Amino acid sequence: MSETVRVVVDAMGGDNAPYEIVKGAVEAAQSRSDIRVILTGQQDRINAELEKYTYSKEQIEVVHCEEVIETAEPPVNAIRRKKQSSLVVGMNMVKHQEADAIVSAGSSGAILVGGQMIVGRIRGVERPPLAPLIPTEKGVALLIDCGANVDARPSHLVQFAQMGSIYMENVVGIKNPRVAILNIGLEEEKGNALVKETYPLLKELEGINFIGSIEAREIPHGGADVIVCEAFSGNIVLKLYEGVAATLLSKVKEGLMSSFRSKIGALLIKPALKQTLKAFDASQYGGAPLLGCNGLVVKTHGSANANDVKNSIIQCVTFKQQGINDRIRDFIAREKNTKSE
Amino acid sequence: MSETVRVVVDAMGGDNAPYEIVKGAVEAAQSRSDIRVILTGQQDRINAELEKYTYSKEQIEVVHCEEVIETAEPPVNAIRRKKQSSLVVGMNMVKHQEADAIVSAGSSGAILVGGQMIVGRIRGVERPPLAPLIPTEKGVALLIDCGANVDARPSHLVQFAQMGSIYMENVVGIKNPRVAILNIGLEEEKGNALVKETYPLLKELEGINFIGSIEAREIPHGGADVIVCEAFSGNIVLKLYEGVAATLLSKVKEGLMSSFRSKIGALLIKPALKQTLKAFDASQYGGAPLLGCNGLVVKTHGSANANDVKNSIIQCVTFKQQGINDRIRDFIAREKNTKSE
Repeated sequence: MSETVRVVVDAMGGDNAPYEIVKGAVEAAQSRSDIRVILTGQQDRINAELEKYTYSKEQIEVVHCEEVIETAEPPVNAIRRKKQSSLVVGMNMVKHQEADAIVSAGSSGAILVGGQMIVGRIRGVERPPLAPLIPTEKGVALLIDCGANVDARPSHLVQFAQMGSIYMENVVGIKNPRVAILNIGLEEEKGNALVKETYPLLKELEGINFIGSIEAREIPHGGADVIVCEAFSGNIVLKLYEGVAATLLSKVKEGLMSSFRSKIGALLIKPALKQTLKAFDASQYGGAPLLGCNGLVVKTHGSANANDVKNSIIQCVTFKQQGINDRIRDFIAREKNTKSE
Repeated sequence: MSETVRVVVDAMGGDNAPYEIVKGAVEAAQSRSDIRVILTGQQDRINAELEKYTYSKEQIEVVHCEEVIETAEPPVNAIRRKKQSSLVVGMNMVKHQEADAIVSAGSSGAILVGGQMIVGRIRGVERPPLAPLIPTEKGVALLIDCGANVDARPSHLVQFAQMGSIYMENVVGIKNPRVAILNIGLEEEKGNALVKETYPLLKELEGINFIGSIEAREIPHGGADVIVCEAFSGNIVLKLYEGVAATLLSKVKEGLMSSFRSKIGALLIKPALKQTLKAFDASQYGGAPLLGCNGLVVKTHGSANANDVKNSIIQCVTFKQQGINDRIRDFIAREKNTKSE
């Protein structure tokens, strides 16, 4: 049997906490015997949810935490002051190697700050990027960085490229992933100062399959597997993806409901449409990892349901079993050696 | 009758030149008697197209130009060397006030460079932004800047906000347009260095209706009328809009064609769907203006058809008749006075 992986799940974070979170934790444990889940949060509420299910008791543990970090709280304050919150207690468990990973659907800001301040960076990693998967025509692409580091420097982007490539190959299973830098044109001389400085560094970087620039238009077409960008641009891509898709689908629905004729048509197309649109959905791959930390921090979206939580937990297992952090450490060490040669 | 507006149309630019371009010019002239079109390009080819139509001869003139700028040519070289190209000749006519505006579906780079180098900036305008309209649930929004000025400074963004607001109010007809800055969160302290520096300047700026930050997710929902951003982010928004929409619609089509049942359904929904999706289309408002030049430069997309060209020409007429450049000059003068007070 594979090594058992211990995953903390912040039972109080997200819009659907604790019920969907607990349900997802149970489903993950039911699906694989090599998972141990530690649910952090208000014991009574968690236990009330757990009672609904049948599962192997030794796979799920509850650690009581009195406090909850709210979405609106300033992240740095929340992390510093709420030592007894489900998120901070969970992160401390990862820090002290009592757990391998933590999954939370709570405040993005608190997760990012906590990941850096509590769990801490792998030695040599300059800035841990948040790297969600986004759907494409061909499958998924990793958008790295997507919220953690605004005003990043070229050396940060080089590390993002390497960490993203390792993740995509070993966790998502894309062989020799195509790495591209987000740009506003394809030629090497295109772009802003950051991209122009980073491009030649990526071109020289050993161990990644750098294919050059990618324009935003080509992202949904699946033009690259790993899309390197600083967080401001990455966040725009992520959120616009959601916004355009939501608006367009609501326009399609509006069209379907606009006449008697189209309503009949809608009934006929519904199953087929659902099927193809489901393919355009990245949530089966879990949440967004904050890469480069000592342990794994995974942020699932605020409205995560049980299935999202389950997939995020399984993602942590693959991450640990594939030794992603050791691979990142190796890369950092090689990079250092190259520089000092 | 309103003042006659003289619009140069680059008959050789774009994928559908010259036939769709000439057709659009003729349709514009047919639709309004206050338009005079000057078609620049290869006379024989233009005349061969013109012969297909009936129109009032005094409304359309042809100026022969031997050269054509290709899309792949480096823009600065093309503008400097191809003095006899349809684009450069046309821009020189605007510069020398032999025309009020120019419309081209040719190379974006050449249009941006030519606009700045030949037509020239209004005195006091630091950098002319390219400002396309993008579709939203509620209508359209102006994305300013979207390709002209990477690594912009706060003072540029302030001018973009003002010029965009003037354009949206007087050309598109949105009263008191809501101006927002593209950001990755709503709070004033969010954003990268550029946004953080620009935000308070916009807050203080008189004469615009500044509503704060807008996240990319809210753009398609119509969260603002004028979206201020530097060109790198703006270009990402513009191109991702296209990419996500294209991918999603192709997924919908794929679903519709996947079974016999869904194909019957597709026939029933087609007219209604076409109607609602048409509403999510900004091309009726013409091309993207390069604002802040002495005269108006409008870039329509490379695959522009006759209708796009016609709408771009009519946009130039509104621009001129509403005295947009005078309004921009007034704003620049006021801004200068405020600074020197």
